[in-house]
Parts: sequence; C-alpha cells; structure tokens
Amino acid sequence: MKLTNLIGDRFKERPADCVIDSHALMVRGGYIKQVGGGIYSSYTVLRRITRKIEQIIREEMDAVGGQEVLFPVVIPAALWQQSGRYESVGPELARFSDRGGMPLVLGMTHEEAAVHLVREYGQSYAKYPFMVYQLQTKFRDEARPRAGLIRVREFTMKDAYSFHISQEDLEQYYQKCHRAYERIFARCGLPEVISVASDSGMMGGKVAHEFMLLTPVGEDTIVTCGGCDFRANMEAAESIVKNAEVPIETLKRVKTPGAKTIEDVCNYLQLPVESSCKAVVYQKNADDAYVVVFLRGDLDVNETKLRNHLREEVHPAVITEDSGIAAGYIGPRGLDNAEILLDTSLKGISNICCGANEPDYHYTGFNIERDYGEAEYHDLAKATTGGICPQCGRPALVISRGIEVGNIFQLGTKYTQSMAMQFAGENGELRYPVMGCYGIGVGRLAASVCEVRHDQYGPIWPMAIAPWQVHLCCLRADDPAAKTAADGLYEQLQAEQFEVIYDDRPLSAGVIFSDADLLGVPVRVIVSPRNIKEGICEIMTRDKTVKKTAGMDAVMGAVRELIQFMGVHTP
Amino acid sequence: MKLTNLIGDRFKERPADCVIDSHALMVRGGYIKQVGGGIYSSYTVLRRITRKIEQIIREEMDAVGGQEVLFPVVIPAALWQQSGRYESVGPELARFSDRGGMPLVLGMTHEEAAVHLVREYGQSYAKYPFMVYQLQTKFRDEARPRAGLIRVREFTMKDAYSFHISQEDLEQYYQKCHRAYERIFARCGLPEVISVASDSGMMGGKVAHEFMLLTPVGEDTIVTCGGCDFRANMEAAESIVKNAEVPIETLKRVKTPGAKTIEDVCNYLQLPVESSCKAVVYQKNADDAYVVVFLRGDLDVNETKLRNHLREEVHPAVITEDSGIAAGYIGPRGLDNAEILLDTSLKGISNICCGANEPDYHYTGFNIERDYGEAEYHDLAKATTGGICPQCGRPALVISRGIEVGNIFQLGTKYTQSMAMQFAGENGELRYPVMGCYGIGVGRLAASVCEVRHDQYGPIWPMAIAPWQVHLCCLRADDPAAKTAADGLYEQLQAEQFEVIYDDRPLSAGVIFSDADLLGVPVRVIVSPRNIKEGICEIMTRDKTVKKTAGMDAVMGAVRELIQFMGVHTP
Repeated sequence: MKLTNLIGDRFKERPADCVIDSHALMVRGGYIKQVGGGIYSSYTVLRRITRKIEQIIREEMDAVGGQEVLFPVVIPAALWQQSGRYESVGPELARFSDRGGMPLVLGMTHEEAAVHLVREYGQSYAKYPFMVYQLQTKFRDEARPRAGLIRVREFTMKDAYSFHISQEDLEQYYQKCHRAYERIFARCGLPEVISVASDSGMMGGKVAHEFMLLTPVGEDTIVTCGGCDFRANMEAAESIVKNAEVPIETLKRVKTPGAKTIEDVCNYLQLPVESSCKAVVYQKNADDAYVVVFLRGDLDVNETKLRNHLREEVHPAVITEDSGIAAGYIGPRGLDNAEILLDTSLKGISNICCGANEPDYHYTGFNIERDYGEAEYHDLAKATTGGICPQCGRPALVISRGIEVGNIFQLGTKYTQSMAMQFAGENGELRYPVMGCYGIGVGRLAASVCEVRHDQYGPIWPMAIAPWQVHLCCLRADDPAAKTAADGLYEQLQAEQFEVIYDDRPLSAGVIFSDADLLGVPVRVIVSPRNIKEGICEIMTRDKTVKKTAGMDAVMGAVRELIQFMGVHTP
Repeated sequence: MKLTNLIGDRFKERPADCVIDSHALMVRGGYIKQVGGGIYSSYTVLRRITRKIEQIIREEMDAVGGQEVLFPVVIPAALWQQSGRYESVGPELARFSDRGGMPLVLGMTHEEAAVHLVREYGQSYAKYPFMVYQLQTKFRDEARPRAGLIRVREFTMKDAYSFHISQEDLEQYYQKCHRAYERIFARCGLPEVISVASDSGMMGGKVAHEFMLLTPVGEDTIVTCGGCDFRANMEAAESIVKNAEVPIETLKRVKTPGAKTIEDVCNYLQLPVESSCKAVVYQKNADDAYVVVFLRGDLDVNETKLRNHLREEVHPAVITEDSGIAAGYIGPRGLDNAEILLDTSLKGISNICCGANEPDYHYTGFNIERDYGEAEYHDLAKATTGGICPQCGRPALVISRGIEVGNIFQLGTKYTQSMAMQFAGENGELRYPVMGCYGIGVGRLAASVCEVRHDQYGPIWPMAIAPWQVHLCCLRADDPAAKTAADGLYEQLQAEQFEVIYDDRPLSAGVIFSDADLLGVPVRVIVSPRNIKEGICEIMTRDKTVKKTAGMDAVMGAVRELIQFMGVHTP
C-alpha cells in the first residue's frame, strides 16, 4: 500500500488529554479515534495489528483443542437471571429493553452463553473435556474509562470457556491454557509478561491468574517476592506482619484533644505508628449499615478483600451525627453501632493505642484479648513493600504496577449448577461439569505492546504484529532516478509477498521519517538520490539496532534476512 | 479434526418451528442455536463457514482499494442526532442509556461513524476517493425475525463506505463495487445472484441496488422483464398500465346497497374491475390525518412508494364514525376530510365506477377531469405479472421472490452535509463529499447458500466456503484393517494441509452418512472393511455427481484433483 492512500492523519503534538504514551502515540499515529467515553473506532493501521493478534490467538487456542464459535453481543436478560448475575453485577452491565419491552443485556463476558450453547451437547462424560472460544465485541460500562485502549468500555475480546468432568481435569487443562497464554504473549512480542495469582472477583470459583505486563503506568498493583517466585495481585496477596513481643502494660484512657488521625495521635502521644490501631469505616450498599475495619496504623484496607469477606458491596462511610460513632476516636471497645472486623495485623499485638469511642479520648496499653475479648481476625489489609512473603516467609515483598493483558479462571460449577447443565458419568450418575474461562483483550494487548515498545518518536512494533513488515521511503520522489529505483523495489517487495507500505510523497525527509516512526514498521528501506548515485540504499530497523547500506542487488536479500531474523527473535 | 470432538449435536427430526429448509438444516446439523428471538449463537461448523466468507469479502474489498477499520457497536446518540436519524429511525434502532444517563444506540448501520472517522482525514480533494469497511456485529430490533439466519436481529455484517469528490466519481466506483459484489457471490458459490434496482429507503440518496438470490422462500419481491434486462424490487418498479380508450359517458349516481368492496360493486353493476376505482385509506403516524389513495380496482398500493411520496410514516386507517368518511363508498368527488392521492393508473381512464361518499351509493361514468377536476398522478401501485415494463414497454413483467444477500447505495451528501464534513477542492472551495455504502450480511449469505444448495439430507457446501474440504468416513472403526487404513489417510490428508473432518466413531454406516450429509462437506472418502480387502476406497462428492473408487495409492491424487476442480468450478 502507498502511504498516500492510508486513511488516518498523523501529527506531532501530544494531545493534552493523553496521560500515557501508548494513548498519545496511537492518537498521533492515526490508529484510533475516540467516538465517546471509552469508545473508539480503529483506523486501518490498528486493524492490521489487531487482525494479526487475533490470528495468533486463534492458532494457540486451536492448538489446545479450542473450537471457535460466536455468541451474541445482545443477550436476553433471562439467561443472566439463570446464573444470578443479572442481579449481582453492578452498573457495568448494560441493561436495556427491546421494542417489545423484553429485557436484554450487552454481553460483558459469556459464561451464560457458553453454558447455553453446550448444555445439550455435554450430556455424556464421553464428550469431555472441550473448549469453545470466540473473538467478539464486548461492552462494559466502566465508571472510569482511561488511558486510551487500556481501559475502555467497548473492546474486542477473545473469551474461551472449557468444560470438564472433574476439578483434576480442569487443573490439567488450566495449565495447558496457561502455557498457551505464555506463547500468545511471547509471539505478540511480550515475553516478559508474568502470571500472578489473582482474586476471581465476580466470576466465581477459586483459582485464577492474571497475566501482567509490568510497567509504571499500569493500573493494577502486583505483589512479588524478592526471595522466591511468589506473585499475586494486591487482592490475592495475603498481608502478613510481625508484631514486636513486649511485656503487657496496663490500659489507660488518655486525653488526645483534637487528634483525629492516626498520625496526630501517634505524634501527640509519641508512639510508633506500628503500635497503633486504625479504624476505617464503611457502609454496606444494601442497607447502609456501618462496618468498621480495625488494622495496624501503618496499613491500609484492601477493599476487594473486604468485599469478598462480606460477600457484598460496601462504600466509604458517611458518619452522621446520630450514628453513635465518634469519628476520629473509634476503637473496638464499646463500639455498639457497627459490625467490627479485625485485620490479622492485630493478632497478638500488645499495648496498642486506639480510640475510646468518645471525642478527644484514646486508650493506650490496649490489649485486644484482655480489653476487648476473644476475637476472630481476617486478612483485610494491603500487602506492603518489605512485607513478609506468604510463600517463603522472608520480608522481601515488592509492590509493582502492571497492565493486566489476560486472565484465566477456574470457575468450578457456579454456572453449570445455576444453569442446570449436567452430564451422565460412567455409571450414569448425574454431575455438574467444572468450568474454566480464559480472556484476552485484543486492543488492550496492542496498546500494551505499544506502551513498552516505543521511543519518543513512536511505537516499535514486533514483527509478528506489525501493521507492515517493510516501510519503503523514497526521499525526493521528484528525483527520477530515486523514484524509479524506489518504484522498482516496491514492485519486488510486493512480488515476494512482503507486506510493504511505500511512502513516495513529495515531502521533506523529516516528515517522511517522523511518519515512519509513528507507524513503527520494523524494517525500513530508504532510497535517496545521493545513495542511488552510488548504487546503494539504506536499510534500518525501527529500533535502530540495525543500520546498514546494501547494493541495489542485495537489498531484497538483506530485507528477507532481517524479516526472518526479527520474526523468529521476537521482540 | 475428529468428528467425535466436534461441538454441537446433529439430529434427524425437522424442528417444528423451522419454516424454510436452510433454517431446519442449520438447526439439525449443529450450526446454530437460538438464544432469543432473532438472536443466535454459531457453533464451530458455521463459524468455519462464516470465516471463509469473511475472508472472501475482505479480499474483494481490498481489491477495490478498501481499508478495513472497526467502528463501535455502541455509539453515542449524539452522533445519530447529527444526521437526524436518532429521531427519524423507528424502533428497530436499539436505544439505551449508560450508567451516567448518556443516551446510546446500537449501530445498525455505520454511516455516521464512518463520517466521524474520516471527517478530518478527508479535508483535501487530493485524498479522494477512499473507502473504509468493517466486519462487525450489528443489532436491528426487527419486529418479525424469521427463517433462521435469513432475518435476524443480531448479525455479522460487512459494511463499507466510500467517499468521493463528485457524483461522477461515485458512479464509477459504484460500478467497481457492483462487480466486486458479483465476484463475492460467485466465489461463495452463488453466481446466479442478480442485482436489481431498489428503493434506498431510510438510507437517503437515489440510486441503489439489491443483490437478490431468487428463491420461492425469499421475503423480497422482485420485478423482472421477460422482454429486456429490466430488474427492480417491488418498491423501485414503476407500475404502468394501459387504459382502454372509449367514448365518454355521462355521470350517474347509482344505488349499490351493501356493496362495500370493489368486487361486490363490480359484480353488482356488471362492470370489469379494470373500469373501477378503488380507495385505500391510511393515517399518518404523526397526527392520524387521513390519506386516501385512489387506484384502478385491479391494483394494490405499494406502501413503500406511498411512504416515500409522503416522506413520512403511515399505517392502515381506522375509520371512525365521526370521520366523515363513508367506508366502502369512498370516491374522490366530495371527499373533504382526507388528503387525496391519485395513482398513475387512473390517468386518462374513462367512465370509471367509484364511491359517492354516501352509504350505498356509487358513481358510474365517472371521468376524473370532468367530474373531479385537474389532478396530479403519482406512482403508488405495485407492479403486476404481465404489467408493462418501464424499460422496454412490453407487457412482460414477471414477479418473483428472492433473498436480498447484499445491497449497495449511492448516498449523495445526506450524511456529509448533516455532519458537516467538507473538503477543499482544487481551487480551495469547500464542498461536501459524495458517499456510497455497501453491505453484506455474512450469516444471511451462509444461510442463502444453504437454501439453494441442499438436498433432503443436508447442505451441499461449495468448496470455497465449506467447513472442511474432505470428510473421511471409517465404516466399522472396530475393524483393525479399516481403522489402520483410515488413520493413515487422515494423517496424509492433514500432512498435505487439506481441511479434513474424520469420522472414526464406532457407529452404523447410516448414522455416519447422515451426519456427513448434514455437514455437507464437498468431498467424501469412505474406508470400509470390504473395500480395504480389495485395496480400494470410495470417493464421492456431496452432490453425488462424482462417485468412484480408487486404489489406496491413488486416493490422495484423486482427492487433490477433485478439490482443485471443485474450487475452480464453483459451485
């Protein structure tokens, strides 16, 4: 294709509303155009990239026995009512009615549709295991779409669903899919993607992994261990702290006038924050009942852990005058108007400082068992850098940021039970199949590659997903010798089935190169009047690691070699 | 792939709710499963077919310079308000709101999104012409989904939009796309698809064509001429009749007690129906105002023509007591409470019989110019078999049924004007680009092929879109010699990259063949114990035109030859 025909504009200025580089480059390079909040159209360049990613995903899904199907985008609400998710999922599920008033949803994930499709097929154990997948548009009404294609409301997703006669079989297959995912990300140019244990959230089930691309612009928080191979996302990482063992002191009620935050109190009383107990107040969405989480003063609540523990939605509390709660002075002892939850960081801690449930008063020398009573403790806090690894026990946790580029879940029988899908076992007994599900967002994957494979001038696409393999530039297309040579190369490259974009616009070298940088094509061939006089042209890679000249006879060979090398050695 | 792993069930009984064969076969063969009214999931078999159709479409769109892009499914209503279609399109446009209350629509066609995408790109005449297309899910809330994949609410569509600096350029490009469409249908196995002039309906613009597959189960009506190459759909076919030239008679008011229908009146008065004038009453949706269409008694109103003439929606009238309209006795003279429209069939007609606007009375010898006054006439009637061809003038019209498998429209500047897309011409003057649009429904195309390429046992897929190329059957998989031979062929076929489905289930030949018939794979290779003893196997085509045996050494060659022949000579 000639660049002059490529639909989409490229420009220099970084758009003001782009916070991360991949978003800015995809706007500047004519990859995407925003249609609404979190809703984009894709131009030609991006569509060429996503089609290649889709093909890689298809090949790897087929290789683990997957069969491509297609579920609807618009799904009768009745199907989501069967699983209970029509009620349990929040406003991110788009709900509407058809012309006859029948309630519909836009599929944001397709467990229900998958069970519906194979419910009759999977009636005998002999049919198992099997897996269906699709590549399709999804809509999730995200509250805060951001960062270009990283967090959108509408996106193309590969979602796969596997069915098994036992948990053991699922676990084996899950490992196969885990490896297929590693291959997909490596083939797309991201071999550094790691998998982390994750919380399975609204999906149901227990074991789940997220595939994370570590980058400071990621919106997910990942916990890894410097001492072993422990990896989890923040929700799934147990928070473990060690409390100093000290002799028990007596309980004192002390005046702490105006000291409402944990920092104020510790400063005022000259106590280390690790000896204090913080209260964080929530309300349940259902009835606004108060829930107070107590945890060590230096820690923070992980709200996902809290929600999972309560099995319901909560929000930060509004503490009213008549609540009976003394904001800033809350402690476990004598707190009657709220559900009390103690984090594991308070287990075995001695002589803490905590609120006395009366304005301007705190306790010191508070010992939970003695001064509050027998208690249960729950893991509700965020893990912290230097925290104790739940796997190896060393204080070596590291907190990083990452983009989730894929996820896999062991779903158990949540959907097959609720939707009455059963199979007859070898002895005719009826059982519920066990499910796994496996997702990858295609556009987010493309943006993630861009995010970690770019320089200040544009993306550096890995060969396997690059929009074209070769970018042919003719500097001075008004020079007959240069133009003739470049036209000849264009024909040869096309004749050899290379994907080539040809820039023969009569523009300055600066414009030609900055456009080429924004398109990020891995191999660049440059024809210029000066070089043509010497019978050579320039060949370079977008990442600048290769830069050489070749005689006109040798150009095709050099390009062929580079493409092969870069294709195998991705990235 | 082994048939034993193929997801989806096949069965014998024709489902009671399937009216047409393709629907029944696609349900019986495990191609589709209904999720809701007009909403289907596709199983593996159909997805393999639709992917091949999509690839053919892509190749032909690319060949006419198209660039694949992707528009959103969910579109802010604001975009449709710009074009005016948010208000003008009826309930088939799904409208809903996001969590923040912002109105959204589900894209049922993407003219607005296309203009939005290229509005900045297309600011200079030098960029023209260009065309973008996508393959994507659409939702149209059809009132009456029916016939399986023929008329659904959700479907995958290829929709393309071209932009031009002049009507002349659009017309040239339109011809190119017309030929590309002919190639697409021929490559998909339907060379008999014809294009007919069509009404452009809600799309705006003037010239449009529908690509029609003639079949009695089609829901569209097509008018062709036995005397020339005239082809149009019912809405676009001008109705022309010849009225007898006879001496003018005098007007008489005659009593016609109880004769309310045109048949009753003509019987009672012993008049030919061609000498009568029928009144058909409508009401405008907007204000329920009455509109009465008068036409020759033997003709029927084409409501699309009526809507296009009025430029608004109408519905059959409910004639109330206080309307002042004498139902059954309506005539043009003295009718005060309705808008009167005269069909061209009444032009120059003499001595008609029509209502006198009084119960039990009609006129005879009515002559419009004399007894009603100067009048305009409009083409509002349906063309009829034997009617006069608008192109060659012979009374040779034929009315047939067809399925619309594609359509192309010349849109003019309806969208570029309403959405303020302009380009600077060679002299800097600002002008509105002229648009064309081009649609094909992928699932409907697959179903249409099935509808005209099947026998009583199943579909007969053309090679180019068949789910597999070869269906290998092992009869008596419990026979070691047969099984070994079949396994060997399976390996060889795979090694040569043929797409092969292998049935080695220990089932009766009857089941194996009826499943193969339902899958409709073009080439079938049958291994049986009896034949293996003689060192041969059977090779046949699904359409039964080829049926032969080949020595085991010659099987691969025979298969290769057949596939090549059938691939070139589609269907």
